[in-house]
Amino acid sequence: MTAESQTRAAHPPGSRTVRVPLGDRSYDIRIVHGDESGGFGPFAREALEATRAGRSCRSALVVTDSNVRALAARHAEALAAQGIAAEVAVVPPGEGSKSLEQAAELLDRLIALRADRHSAVVAVGGGVVGDLAGFVASTYARGIPLLMAPTTLLAQVDSSVGGKVGVNRPAAKNIVGAFHQPSGVWIDTRSLDTLPPRELRCGMAEVVKYGVILDPAFFEAVERAAAAVLALDPAAVAPVVARCCELKAGVVSEDEREETGLRAVLNFGHTIGHAVEAVAGYGGPFQHGEAVAAGMVAESRLAERLGWIDPGLTDRLSRLLRLLGLPTSAPGLDPRALIAAMTLDKKNAGGRIRFVLPRALGSVELTDAPAEGDVRAVLDELTAAD
Amino acid sequence: MTAESQTRAAHPPGSRTVRVPLGDRSYDIRIVHGDESGGFGPFAREALEATRAGRSCRSALVVTDSNVRALAARHAEALAAQGIAAEVAVVPPGEGSKSLEQAAELLDRLIALRADRHSAVVAVGGGVVGDLAGFVASTYARGIPLLMAPTTLLAQVDSSVGGKVGVNRPAAKNIVGAFHQPSGVWIDTRSLDTLPPRELRCGMAEVVKYGVILDPAFFEAVERAAAAVLALDPAAVAPVVARCCELKAGVVSEDEREETGLRAVLNFGHTIGHAVEAVAGYGGPFQHGEAVAAGMVAESRLAERLGWIDPGLTDRLSRLLRLLGLPTSAPGLDPRALIAAMTLDKKNAGGRIRFVLPRALGSVELTDAPAEGDVRAVLDELTAAD
Ligand SMILES: NC(=O)c1ccc[n+]([C@@H]2O[C@H](COP(=O)([O-])OP(=O)(O)OC[C@H]3O[C@@H](n4cnc5c(N)ncnc54)[C@H](O)[C@@H]3O)[C@@H](O)[C@H]2O)c1
Ligand SMILES: NC(=O)c1ccc[n+]([C@@H]2O[C@H](COP(=O)([O-])OP(=O)(O)OC[C@H]3O[C@@H](n4cnc5c(N)ncnc54)[C@H](O)[C@@H]3O)[C@@H](O)[C@H]2O)c1
Ligand SMILES: [Zn+2]
Ligand SMILES: [Zn+2]
Repeated sequence: MTAESQTRAAHPPGSRTVRVPLGDRSYDIRIVHGDESGGFGPFAREALEATRAGRSCRSALVVTDSNVRALAARHAEALAAQGIAAEVAVVPPGEGSKSLEQAAELLDRLIALRADRHSAVVAVGGGVVGDLAGFVASTYARGIPLLMAPTTLLAQVDSSVGGKVGVNRPAAKNIVGAFHQPSGVWIDTRSLDTLPPRELRCGMAEVVKYGVILDPAFFEAVERAAAAVLALDPAAVAPVVARCCELKAGVVSEDEREETGLRAVLNFGHTIGHAVEAVAGYGGPFQHGEAVAAGMVAESRLAERLGWIDPGLTDRLSRLLRLLGLPTSAPGLDPRALIAAMTLDKKNAGGRIRFVLPRALGSVELTDAPAEGDVRAVLDELTAAD
Repeated sequence: MTAESQTRAAHPPGSRTVRVPLGDRSYDIRIVHGDESGGFGPFAREALEATRAGRSCRSALVVTDSNVRALAARHAEALAAQGIAAEVAVVPPGEGSKSLEQAAELLDRLIALRADRHSAVVAVGGGVVGDLAGFVASTYARGIPLLMAPTTLLAQVDSSVGGKVGVNRPAAKNIVGAFHQPSGVWIDTRSLDTLPPRELRCGMAEVVKYGVILDPAFFEAVERAAAAVLALDPAAVAPVVARCCELKAGVVSEDEREETGLRAVLNFGHTIGHAVEAVAGYGGPFQHGEAVAAGMVAESRLAERLGWIDPGLTDRLSRLLRLLGLPTSAPGLDPRALIAAMTLDKKNAGGRIRFVLPRALGSVELTDAPAEGDVRAVLDELTAAD
């Protein structure tokens, strides 16, 4: 896994830039802490106009949810100062907004604005806003430029990078969507100051995941910086966010549309994690990041059973997750229900459950080798009473 | 305009194949008259499996409308005989089915079928079914393969070629969509036998358009074959359909995503035609093809006023359209309303109305040169009482 992305010389001072190399769909992720220098406006205009053969950007719909509308309003003003007429559309917070019905409302809003190919969509919010607004941008007039300004840690390190956009249907999550790369991503780590601590911890589960699947040195850096990151020390947060973006950019640039299977490495912890989320009930005791934390531990134990890794690695992973306030088990869930949920999951071919399992710290492999007995054993352990 | 497409040696006997050259999204259009040899099933399976790195196709949703459901049922059986489990979804006929709400129902149907990347969507019907089913295929699981079996002349010569898929919103037609190339297109010209004659004539408007914009020899061939085509003489219909597919494939392959402006040549007759359709009222006296016929005549007159062509060319075009039973004027419509509708149209930049106008038979140019007075004059002529 070679990450072609690079951390560039800063602009504005103190900022970092990660390039996502995707040919003529390449774009920059700019990471800043506080926007006193007013960098958002110029960055947004340049990024939007670099797409679509330099066509000028004249208007934008800024999509946000009510928890971050103040920031969205500031961003709209910054766009206006760049000559981009911007309106703000506020959706209710939460997964329920990631629907075709909400997308239809935003599409109608774009029609009412007379949006055309000189228009753009700007997503200001977490993964819900990004996925929804991105889907709208991907389908309006067969695709208009999209700019992301993610405001949750999860969105900053994961959902804003990679071009996956989409909405849910009642019977299936993320089933309707597209690949639509953004023109640019603006990450202000200061926006995390208002984020509920539980959301911050959930984002850290994905951060830990990058270390396990791709980068042992980064895993160690997270071990050292865990407390400082949770305390939102800017000197600790920015490099962590930037490295995650680089790592995900590397994977995405080698498998943009999930065709080669390479992108699957990002699913470590997610086969069991998704089952935990589904069985415990969406909106229930396990948020996504918490379910993934428990899932990573269980899948790491599965790798032990294949003889791929030492128990020491799983123990080390568990320690870090606990330090971050994340669960490492899911006591009380029914192991049979978890297996049923995994069998339903689209990652399975021919009945066998596929996992992404560690071979060593920083290296994973896609496999359907685990026998049902081994899967059952780690699920028993995962769900045992504490 | 070099059409890289080619008419290949026949398979099954008597069939024609037009290749649409789009790199790794290239595909075949197979044109047959009657499917006694059972060619649809093998063609469909091969085409679907050639997409997505040869992944096997295990299930399909056949989308159709109630006017062609019998044909759709036969196609579903042919797929089943190839080991592809196929279900048929029937939508109501008419433009109203090209909606996000109808798309949502079909997406839910795919979810209920447990469709995955080994599944496909097969569109059996006119442009409405093709655009709707294509949109569903483009968004389900971020895109699954699509096969088109167009059953109207318009769909066979126009909407099935080029990868534009989408649905309407109440306030704007075709505003939500994607570019999603099919894996293959199966055209059985015998399916036209049941098509209402007015639909057949409407398709002929687009056929005439191809001659004017790209191919003088083809225009002459259509002049000679007009009566035989309207009578659905197979020997006349198949070569006309095949040549239109070749001509559109040539344009599309040079400007797949409407970025270079080249694809705009296909809009000859459509700037004024769309206005006629909108002002007369959708579902009103002018069907799309009829409005385009009148629009082509008016736009040809506009080219005369620029000194680009002789009146003789417009007269010849009008004669052919009348021979085909198509209108060449729109008496009684309000010219000011037509101008207002054109000014709203997305083809305009900076207030000026853009047209695709003939330079000679077989050659057109995109221009905003026409002065408002000239536009007004041709609209007065277009709308004058007979
Ligand atoms: N596209 C992808 O590649 C990808 C990857 C992972 C997850 N996702 C999707 O992301 C979504 C989850 O994203 P999320 O975890 O960001 O959830 P979210 O967008 O629901 O945000 C979580 C909560 O935090 C609030 N919030 C956001 N920013 C805030 C801030 N700065 N201050 C205070 N409150 C703030 C939101 O209003 C919400 O209530 C899911 O729908 C998931 O499917 C997508
Ligand atoms: N995607 C593109 O590039 C593109 C290009 C041009 C037009 N279109 C779209 O195509 C649509 C119009 O397509 P259309 O003209 O085929 O209309 P349509 O699909 O509505 O079909 C016209 C009528 O003929 C019926 N019908 C279809 N095949 C039949 C058959 N073999 N026998 C009897 N009845 C039959 C249909 O049920 C319908 O009532 C519009 O929505 C337009 O926007 C798309
Ligand atoms: Zn995740
Ligand atoms: Zn047309």
